[in-house]
Amino acid sequence: MALIDLSKQVALGIDIGGTNTKFGLVNHRGEILEKGSIRTDQYGEVEEYIEDLYKTVAPLLKQHCSHRQFDGIGVGAPNANYFRGTIEHAPNLRWKGIIPFADMMTKKFGVPCKMTNDANAAALGELLFGAARGMKDFIMITLGTGVGSGIVSGGKLIYGNDGFAGELGHTIVKPGGRKHWSTGSEGSLEAYASATGIAVTAKKMRAEFPESMLNEFPEEDIDSKVVFECAKKGDPTAIEVFRYTGQKLGEALANFVMFSSPEAILLFGGVIKAGDFILKPTKLHMERNLLPIFRNKVKLVFSELDEADAAILGASALVWEK
Amino acid sequence: MALIDLSKQVALGIDIGGTNTKFGLVNHRGEILEKGSIRTDQYGEVEEYIEDLYKTVAPLLKQHCSHRQFDGIGVGAPNANYFRGTIEHAPNLRWKGIIPFADMMTKKFGVPCKMTNDANAAALGELLFGAARGMKDFIMITLGTGVGSGIVSGGKLIYGNDGFAGELGHTIVKPGGRKHWSTGSEGSLEAYASATGIAVTAKKMRAEFPESMLNEFPEEDIDSKVVFECAKKGDPTAIEVFRYTGQKLGEALANFVMFSSPEAILLFGGVIKAGDFILKPTKLHMERNLLPIFRNKVKLVFSELDEADAAILGASALVWEK
Repeated sequence: MALIDLSKQVALGIDIGGTNTKFGLVNHRGEILEKGSIRTDQYGEVEEYIEDLYKTVAPLLKQHCSHRQFDGIGVGAPNANYFRGTIEHAPNLRWKGIIPFADMMTKKFGVPCKMTNDANAAALGELLFGAARGMKDFIMITLGTGVGSGIVSGGKLIYGNDGFAGELGHTIVKPGGRKHWSTGSEGSLEAYASATGIAVTAKKMRAEFPESMLNEFPEEDIDSKVVFECAKKGDPTAIEVFRYTGQKLGEALANFVMFSSPEAILLFGGVIKAGDFILKPTKLHMERNLLPIFRNKVKLVFSELDEADAAILGASALVWEK
Repeated sequence: MALIDLSKQVALGIDIGGTNTKFGLVNHRGEILEKGSIRTDQYGEVEEYIEDLYKTVAPLLKQHCSHRQFDGIGVGAPNANYFRGTIEHAPNLRWKGIIPFADMMTKKFGVPCKMTNDANAAALGELLFGAARGMKDFIMITLGTGVGSGIVSGGKLIYGNDGFAGELGHTIVKPGGRKHWSTGSEGSLEAYASATGIAVTAKKMRAEFPESMLNEFPEEDIDSKVVFECAKKGDPTAIEVFRYTGQKLGEALANFVMFSSPEAILLFGGVIKAGDFILKPTKLHMERNLLPIFRNKVKLVFSELDEADAAILGASALVWEK
């Protein structure tokens, strides 16, 4: 055993999204030796997907390590269950029902495979290689098409009793509020703070303010990127879209802080490109809703890692997790 | 070392409330060998309080164990900090500022002293000796004068970065809602689901329904006990008070479940005497606000331990915690 040079060991980190799957070969130092991607949405059958993924990855593996140096596979995927190694009823994937994904991967690749949800994987990436290095208690909030979260407490990811902990995007921030387009719940954080939610807010607000620059765009082009462009040009309505989003997000974050009292909250994902337009109102409303004992203690920061890398690094870290 | 008979070792468990302090000598099996109490609110100075506590407890200690068998003191107190052994700015205690309580106790009693907040102590009590035995993930909600909480995840209490985690009573369940009488926050869980909050709801509702039995009582007598008496007699307004309370509590619990995905939520404290009047609407609204993957999984149960015993047992367990 002493003959194994740990620095030469390699893990395959995989980040499965609804559209694309990104993967990387990662070593113990968190260096990505090789990256690549395949489409996720092209495969109606998970078997074909795994077959093609194998064909794409196998030559790269051969190039970078011997089979003895290949320690395993870590996967971040929507609705992935850490305890069971399954993907369960993921609304954004074509594979329906409960998929025993980890077992299928192990059969194909001949190495152990561990999984967790995509936001948890990103949180692990930040913990090991990003802005959360050395932290024992932090919450990662991913603000993309949806809102995901990974919660680290006492140095460990919270998986909960059934492996599904940390669905903070689906917590209700405004009872009886905006109906979610897919879950049907009313007033969830995701309905307001995701890129999708921001587009909904923008469409409502531009209808109220005919003079807004946002009205220069066709309906289908209104997204968080366009809102950001208009905000940068000083459009008060676009700025108000982010302020309102930040208020809802900040109120939610205050509740999360009173739950697990983290050292920091890391924001991650496409929406954070809006910078201070989103960060400042979020911080204001988080602080305003905290008990005094929690105030001005919790760092609210943007992720430092490249978005794609964080998930790959975090997923690969599952392989070496104790 | 082998000569120590563990079953003879004793811990002093202390539960500090705003009015009374209860204590017990507890052995390794969770048997309370001796119980007692002193007033908390009689002492303007914490030094006098500790002096009198010592005078009360010392003879009992002498009776039940040698100094070698006395392993330490565990304390549950409002706003107690686990990491620092302090009581910090507790609104319901007369001792203001930051009190180095654990150090003061150690100096007086000559043994180590550990502390945590009262709800955490009760959660530990349930984990070791009550309804949560064998569980790794559960949330304890105490519904008394206020609303407290203790969160166990992966078999351990969540203390957070600063030792103040688990202030779920102060999470906002209705933004812009009822103003809290002491914190000033708007729409916190405590403002609705505590005994104090229930009294507020009852006073509002009886004013709307002149025919309610609740109107037979003078203003100052309206409390959760009176509401329960009227509900038992079939008064629709009193029943509605608990239904409304359960709705707010259930909505909050759904958010907590999506945070840490517990196996069970334990309800504890005076308010649970209302039984199904509070339990049924709480369960209904919890389930209604959960994502499908969490539905019908989480047990919602009442504590099995005597209220006073749970806190004493949990506090004493701090002494032997790894």
